[in-house]
Amino acid sequence: MTAKRQIHLGLFLQGAGHHVSGWRHPNAEAGSENFDLLRRVAQEAEKAKFDMIFLADGLTSGVDAHPSMIARFEPLTLLSALAMVTERIGLAATASTTYGEPYHLARAFSSIDHLSHGRAAWNIVTTSYARTANNFSKSHPEHDERYAVAQEFVDVVRGLWDSWDDDAFPKNKESGVYADPNKVHVLDHVGKYFSVKGPLNIPRSPQGHPVLIQAGSSGPGQDLAARTADIVFTAQQSLGEAQAFYKSLKERVAKFGRNPNGVAVMPGFLPVVGRTLAEASEKLIELDKWTDVVGALPLLEERLGHSLSGYDLDGPLPDLPISDQLRSRAELLTALARRENLTIRQLALRVAAGRGHHMIIGTAEDIANRMQEWFENGAADGFNVMPPYFPGGLEEFNAQVVPILQERGLYRRDYVGTTLRDHLGLTRPNLPA
Amino acid sequence: MTAKRQIHLGLFLQGAGHHVSGWRHPNAEAGSENFDLLRRVAQEAEKAKFDMIFLADGLTSGVDAHPSMIARFEPLTLLSALAMVTERIGLAATASTTYGEPYHLARAFSSIDHLSHGRAAWNIVTTSYARTANNFSKSHPEHDERYAVAQEFVDVVRGLWDSWDDDAFPKNKESGVYADPNKVHVLDHVGKYFSVKGPLNIPRSPQGHPVLIQAGSSGPGQDLAARTADIVFTAQQSLGEAQAFYKSLKERVAKFGRNPNGVAVMPGFLPVVGRTLAEASEKLIELDKWTDVVGALPLLEERLGHSLSGYDLDGPLPDLPISDQLRSRAELLTALARRENLTIRQLALRVAAGRGHHMIIGTAEDIANRMQEWFENGAADGFNVMPPYFPGGLEEFNAQVVPILQERGLYRRDYVGTTLRDHLGLTRPNLPA
Ligand SMILES: Cc1cc2nc3c(=O)[nH]c(=O)nc-3n(C[C@H](O)[C@H](O)[C@H](O)COP(=O)(O)O)c2cc1C
Ligand SMILES: Cc1cc2nc3c(=O)[nH]c(=O)nc-3n(C[C@H](O)[C@H](O)[C@H](O)COP(=O)(O)O)c2cc1C
Repeated sequence: MTAKRQIHLGLFLQGAGHHVSGWRHPNAEAGSENFDLLRRVAQEAEKAKFDMIFLADGLTSGVDAHPSMIARFEPLTLLSALAMVTERIGLAATASTTYGEPYHLARAFSSIDHLSHGRAAWNIVTTSYARTANNFSKSHPEHDERYAVAQEFVDVVRGLWDSWDDDAFPKNKESGVYADPNKVHVLDHVGKYFSVKGPLNIPRSPQGHPVLIQAGSSGPGQDLAARTADIVFTAQQSLGEAQAFYKSLKERVAKFGRNPNGVAVMPGFLPVVGRTLAEASEKLIELDKWTDVVGALPLLEERLGHSLSGYDLDGPLPDLPISDQLRSRAELLTALARRENLTIRQLALRVAAGRGHHMIIGTAEDIANRMQEWFENGAADGFNVMPPYFPGGLEEFNAQVVPILQERGLYRRDYVGTTLRDHLGLTRPNLPA
Repeated sequence: MTAKRQIHLGLFLQGAGHHVSGWRHPNAEAGSENFDLLRRVAQEAEKAKFDMIFLADGLTSGVDAHPSMIARFEPLTLLSALAMVTERIGLAATASTTYGEPYHLARAFSSIDHLSHGRAAWNIVTTSYARTANNFSKSHPEHDERYAVAQEFVDVVRGLWDSWDDDAFPKNKESGVYADPNKVHVLDHVGKYFSVKGPLNIPRSPQGHPVLIQAGSSGPGQDLAARTADIVFTAQQSLGEAQAFYKSLKERVAKFGRNPNGVAVMPGFLPVVGRTLAEASEKLIELDKWTDVVGALPLLEERLGHSLSGYDLDGPLPDLPISDQLRSRAELLTALARRENLTIRQLALRVAAGRGHHMIIGTAEDIANRMQEWFENGAADGFNVMPPYFPGGLEEFNAQVVPILQERGLYRRDYVGTTLRDHLGLTRPNLPA
């Protein structure tokens, strides 16, 4: 971390916006495969000095999904394209340890780290939805086994990233030595889930290891983060919940012998900005008005891992066992419904707006205050910003909220280094001795 | 195909050059992870109006490999980056059906097709080398089974590319219809090797289907090409062998009920250009002089699928059973050694120079003549050009050979269309009724 602690910002980029009806807003340009929009948004985030752009992912589709997730670019090819049209901002993409191969992933992220001169990050997920298995000729492992696989997967990837010394490729025309045979490290991994010999077929990348992000907040999820991650992406509703999560996570980091200051906790953060509170509220009411509760219901059911058919939409959320699909999110939404006494309809609308992430409706001042509050009270080291619609929602945030954070000295006015590790104040990992 | 039949050109791009010592040439900029070089070379190929850039691939590494293959970019992320710095040239990358998932590949190539506005192509390979399995926690299927898997894999990918009608995403802000539920097609594939439900989570791409290239020239390889490919990449040594392959392939295409003119046969073609024949020969002698036969031997052994240790380097190639690793290449090299009475050392040097592809040493005139001869005599519809070193080898080819082909009306002076299908004279596939 840098000398003076500052807020880290990710831009969670989803073409159609984060609010389920965001794409219908007048300042939205709907488009899942609209690269021109994504390019402009990424450049806009870079102008505002965000640490990184963040791409989520999923491996299924269906017309009842969130519009940003029915159809979209494959994140690694998209990231690589974005690397060509930006210069300093970090570039993070989600990839699953349940439906991939460590050799392929290690290679692709290393490749993007080379192409972007040290700006790549991998958001490690285990994939929630069991129906994903139908697209991959296999069955979906249960929750805790997914995390056991993930631990080994990440270890293999990190091992592969250390296949070559930094000076392994002298490419000396005179001596004829292209690669130095003494500077290669064969991994020879044989584990419970993977056997991977190595070496990786790409030189060690500018960051040594691309930055690791972990998203998944259950106990096993936190353990994976504590052992391996540089950034933790999480959904937290209230200050209290966020503080508890922050504390739990940092304690686990210490337990694994790592420095808690070296791991940034970044909750999702959905800002609805208005010049007045009334204007901001009006904006959300409008977005909600466009939202078909019947269409929003599958998004809620997916997160709970249970069908709600047969229940009264205007009645309370029934008592349902916590499903293992998306364990931490199911817990969060159940707690939210109980705390605020929400009906199923109301809860579905909340999910439609922010999928369980913290949403704040207010003036730029209100929003900056909330960020400062979480940042200064052990709830967050930064935020993954989720504009309800693109590009308008980001433009408003950048024009109105960012300058306040900068004036308060809470957020950078310019990049200091060139790599994502530089932005995060992280050093480049050495090769194991 | 276009009205007047013209030669199609691919640029087979390998950072360190095709000749094993190409990277040591004064006009070479060695660099596997040197994106700046690759960008300039791609732009140079586009200036010369090549149909496409072609990226090979492999899923292993080792210091005894060809320098272009010890370390390199992951091809799909590289292709995506190249899409951003070029405008018209086609973009082909190799990906294996033995070590991948159809859902991932269908998605990534569709994504690149969107990002490049219709310039993507997939070179389908089954992966030759058994040691690849060591990086993927599995065992290497034998030759013919690899092709059986490949057939099903390609069918699934094509099915996934047809998941959505072209107008499936009205994104109508007023009606609120983002995706039209009547315009999605669920694949529901259940086969011998794969079960893939679909739909794919990306809209149908500009080319409908990215262009399909097939590389692998055995009988099962040709059948796969004949059923599915738009382009066939092959290694052929002599005019006679190339004619026999061309005839065999086109007959198989007809047998599968497809139009033989819709499939372009493009052998690899390694030009060593000089202002005189003597200058060209001198160039090759220099490259060969830098070549360590002991270093070249593994490249030969790999292609034969047999160790040659214990044999006299200056003796004849022993009688070895044809291995199933790289069946067609082993046959080609064995035939070459017999025909020209080559010693092991001489054969290893040939492999070091062109890996079994057709090499021609001469003036620009000689080279253009040879291309015309193959093109007009039923041996080739185009060539995958393999400069011995980069960027010099391509610059010479473009400056000296391309203008001759253009003057003779054998090759385009400018692009007519915008997609790779346009360059190849192929129509966009309709969705199955
Ligand atoms: C903030 C957050 C973001 C996530 N993003 C993704 C994602 O983009 N793709 C995905 O497949 N899963 C994503 N997940 C799901 C996790 O990978 C995991 O499968 C799921 O949360 C269950 O684990 P948990 O109980 O530890 O949260 C996310 C989870 C969280 C908490
Ligand atoms: C011209 C040509 C190029 C090839 N390029 C690749 C490649 O880039 N990567 C790869 O793994 N295999 C490549 N192959 C190998 C094939 O995928 C296949 O595994 C091998 O050739 C054995 O099949 P065959 O006997 O049909 O040729 C290539 C084969 C040929 C003929």
